[in-house]
Amino acid sequence: MSQSLDIAVIGATGTVGETLVQLLDERDFPVGNLYLLASGESAGASVPFKGRNLRVRDVADFDFSQVRLAFFAAGEAVTRSFADRATAVGCSLIDLSGALDQGDAPSLVPEANPQLLAGLAAPYRLASPSASAVALACVLAPLKGLLKPQRLTVAASLAVSSRGREGVTELARQTAELLNARPLEPRFFDRQIAFNILAQAGTPDAEGHISLERRLVAEIKQLLGEPGMRISATCALAPVFFGDSLAVSLVAESAVDVAAVRERLAQAPSVEFVEEEGDYPTAVGDAVGQDSVYVGRVRGGLDDPCELNLWIASDNARKGAALNAVQSAELLIKHYLSKILT
Amino acid sequence: MSQSLDIAVIGATGTVGETLVQLLDERDFPVGNLYLLASGESAGASVPFKGRNLRVRDVADFDFSQVRLAFFAAGEAVTRSFADRATAVGCSLIDLSGALDQGDAPSLVPEANPQLLAGLAAPYRLASPSASAVALACVLAPLKGLLKPQRLTVAASLAVSSRGREGVTELARQTAELLNARPLEPRFFDRQIAFNILAQAGTPDAEGHISLERRLVAEIKQLLGEPGMRISATCALAPVFFGDSLAVSLVAESAVDVAAVRERLAQAPSVEFVEEEGDYPTAVGDAVGQDSVYVGRVRGGLDDPCELNLWIASDNARKGAALNAVQSAELLIKHYLSKILT
Repeated sequence: MSQSLDIAVIGATGTVGETLVQLLDERDFPVGNLYLLASGESAGASVPFKGRNLRVRDVADFDFSQVRLAFFAAGEAVTRSFADRATAVGCSLIDLSGALDQGDAPSLVPEANPQLLAGLAAPYRLASPSASAVALACVLAPLKGLLKPQRLTVAASLAVSSRGREGVTELARQTAELLNARPLEPRFFDRQIAFNILAQAGTPDAEGHISLERRLVAEIKQLLGEPGMRISATCALAPVFFGDSLAVSLVAESAVDVAAVRERLAQAPSVEFVEEEGDYPTAVGDAVGQDSVYVGRVRGGLDDPCELNLWIASDNARKGAALNAVQSAELLIKHYLSKILT
Repeated sequence: MSQSLDIAVIGATGTVGETLVQLLDERDFPVGNLYLLASGESAGASVPFKGRNLRVRDVADFDFSQVRLAFFAAGEAVTRSFADRATAVGCSLIDLSGALDQGDAPSLVPEANPQLLAGLAAPYRLASPSASAVALACVLAPLKGLLKPQRLTVAASLAVSSRGREGVTELARQTAELLNARPLEPRFFDRQIAFNILAQAGTPDAEGHISLERRLVAEIKQLLGEPGMRISATCALAPVFFGDSLAVSLVAESAVDVAAVRERLAQAPSVEFVEEEGDYPTAVGDAVGQDSVYVGRVRGGLDDPCELNLWIASDNARKGAALNAVQSAELLIKHYLSKILT
C-alpha cells in the first residue's frame, strides 16, 4: 500500500498496547503519524517505534480528528469515555477492551469471519474479541463443513498478563516471597496466585458468571455464526505470565471424523498443529511470542462418537489481542482504504 | 474398636504413603504392628509414627502373612508385583496406584458408594481411585435424586505432587532457576513446568488419551453407578505443588435447580461449599491440608437450563488418596473386622 494512515493507540503503555505498537512496526503497517495515548498517570512515558522514542500523551486532551484509525487497548472505562468522541469526528476504531457490545462494534477475527466486513459503513467500529475467543475462532472456524458443533465446553487457564502489567508483577513478587520463605501478602489479586489457580478471573455476577465468561460465549457465537450453539465457559487464572491454555470439549451433531479434523487443523491458517509422537502444545515454549494459535491433543470421545476434545495454547497479548487487532485493521484497510481516508 | 490390626504400608516414603502413615496416627486407626515398606532404593529410610521412627523395609523381602491389611501406595509396577502375594496369604489390600482393574479391585469412596462393601468376600481387594475421582464423587454423589447427569466434562489441573516427590522437587528447582535468570534445563518433566501448564499428565495412547483420563472416566462411572453417563476428561499438569483444581460442566436430563444444588452441597459430608459474597475455593489456601473437598462457582448454563457448572479444589495427596484409603479401611473394618482378622 502506498498510502498511509494517521493512527492513535490508546493504552500504549500496557502489555497489549506495547505489543501493538511493536507489531505496527514489524509488519510495516502503513502508519503515517502515530499518536500514542494513555489515560492519566501513564501519560508522559515514552515508547519506542521505528527507532524513535514516542512520548505518550493524555487521551483526554487528544483531538481525534488528527487520525483516521484508533486502537483502543486500555481498559473498558477508557473506551466508554472516548470511543464516541473518535467516531464522531470520522475516526474508525478497533476496540480491544470488550467495552462495546456486539451491535455497536462486532467482533472480527480475520481467519474466522472476514465476511463481516461486507456492508459496514464508515466510520468503522470493530472489536477485537477476548484472547480466548480469538484462539477458539482460529481453531474452530476451519472445522466448518466438517462438523456442526452443538455444544462447546471451554475451561480456560488464563495468564496473569490478562490482567495487565500489575498481574505480571504480582505473580513475580509472590513467587519470590514464597521461594525465600517470607510471609505472603497478596496485593493485586485477592489471594495467593503463586503455585495456585484462582477459579475466577473476575468478579461473579448474581448468577455466578464473570463478565469475561459471558463475553467469551457471546463472541464465539458471533464469530462462528452459530447463535444456537450451547457454550459453557470457565475462565480461571493460572500462575503463568504469558500464554493462555484452553481445554476444549465439543459435541457435534453427528459422529466426528477425528482424522479429518487433524488434517484440517494441519492446514489451517494461523494454526500450528502439534501432535507428532506424543508431542503437545504449551503456552510457554510454543505459543508465546508467536503469531499462530497452537492446537493439539486432538482426540475423540471415550464413549461418544460425536465428541471432540482439543487443547489450545495461545499468546494472549500477541495473537489473542494486539496481532488480531492489527490483522483486523489490515483487512479493513484492504476493503475500505478510500473510505477510511475520506 | 478394642481390637487392632497388623498393617503394612507399601510406598511409605512417597508423598501419599507418608501422609497415610500420618493419618493412621492422627485418626487413632486400630494399628497393631505397622510395617513400612518400599521398593529398592527407598528401603532403609525411616518414617515417624506415634513418636517412634520406623525403619522402611524392602517390600520384596516381606512376608505378607504377618499382616491382615496392606495399603499399596507405591507405583503401579509394585502393586502388580506384590498384590497377589498379599491376598494369597489372606491379607486384604487397598490399592492406591491404579494398577488393578475394577473387576479385580473395585473403587471405593465412602461418601459415594459405601454399598459396595455389601457382599464382598475376604481377603478384600479394594481400590482408592484417582484423586480427581475421589473429589468428583464426593461432590456429585450428594446430587443424586436431584439431577440425572447425562454428560460430564472435567478439565483437571493437577498438582505436580500427583507425580510424586520428584514432581515437587522439579517445580521448585525450575522456578528458582527462572527467578535467578539461569538457563532452564527440564529434568523430570519433558519441558518447562514453572509458569507453564502441561497439556497432558502422562503419555497419550494411540487415540490421544492418557491412562489417567481413561482411569478417571471408568472410576467415576463405577463410583456414581452411572455406566451410561458420557464423560470427557482432560488431565493437565499445573505449576502447583499440592492441590488439584477441577473445572466441571455437567448436562442433566432435565432443567437443573441450581439453588437446590447449592443447598445439597452445603450439607454434604466431606464437602466444603464456598460461595459467600463472590468467594470461591482454591487449592492453596482452602483445600490443601484439609479433609474435605472444596466446591464453589456453582452456576447454571448461560444458554441451557440443563447445564450445571462447578469448580472443585481438593488436596490430591490427602483427601484424594491417603485419607480416602484410610476412610475406606475404616469402613471395611466396621463391616468385616472378624473376617479380616481370621
